[in-house]
Amino acid sequence: MTFRVLKIDHLGIAVPDASAATTAFEALGFHVESSHDVATERVKTVFLPVGESHLELLEPTAPSSTIAKFLEKRSGLHHVCVLVDDIEAAMADMRAKGVQLLDETPRIGAGGCRVAFIHPRSAAGVLLELKEDEA
Amino acid sequence: MTFRVLKIDHLGIAVPDASAATTAFEALGFHVESSHDVATERVKTVFLPVGESHLELLEPTAPSSTIAKFLEKRSGLHHVCVLVDDIEAAMADMRAKGVQLLDETPRIGAGGCRVAFIHPRSAAGVLLELKEDEA
Repeated sequence: MTFRVLKIDHLGIAVPDASAATTAFEALGFHVESSHDVATERVKTVFLPVGESHLELLEPTAPSSTIAKFLEKRSGLHHVCVLVDDIEAAMADMRAKGVQLLDETPRIGAGGCRVAFIHPRSAAGVLLELKEDEA
Repeated sequence: MTFRVLKIDHLGIAVPDASAATTAFEALGFHVESSHDVATERVKTVFLPVGESHLELLEPTAPSSTIAKFLEKRSGLHHVCVLVDDIEAAMADMRAKGVQLLDETPRIGAGGCRVAFIHPRSAAGVLLELKEDEA
């Protein structure tokens, strides 16, 4: 199975207060494109475009959110999402190469796209997300 | 002064062993474009293209490297570099908005470009680098 990594889709940044973080990034030359409540993940997200990518601010909306748990240790960069052309081919290819996946099969991410996470152990300490655009 | 953020130029990823990390990212669908020894920063860097951006693996070559100090605490994402069209305008504009800069004036980065760093305090915990391409 072959696949291609197309681009960095977004960088996930965990923040305790998305409104304050938005103000900070506006001072840095960014602007808000959209914001969403993602009930399944218990986060509020704010997307700021940059080139072909986005920054994604992630504010937890419940203590049980994985982002809330992350913020107990630190704030800042949480994950890197890359767009791939074929997520199932990517997962099969990676599995064959010994890459440790956190998802057995693709699951539905925030915008309705199929996503899957790679264990940081297989990506030099980076929590890497794979995403395939909707067909 | 006005300026524009053009794109994510690269993501800096601190690793104890760039060769092992390269093998890991090759299994994830990335490939090496170039590698450099940056004597002034006491790091070895490996660049892997992804869309309009790059991953930059950073391996320290001396214990006094800032990357070596970072790795004492953790590995993984270290900084995000964004390309701007006018670094001096960007710094002036940010300073006027109360953004805390780590560099008073632009300095020369790895590829001969002018760069400057923003304090993570002003970017939701993210170490942000500004870069202007060579004229």
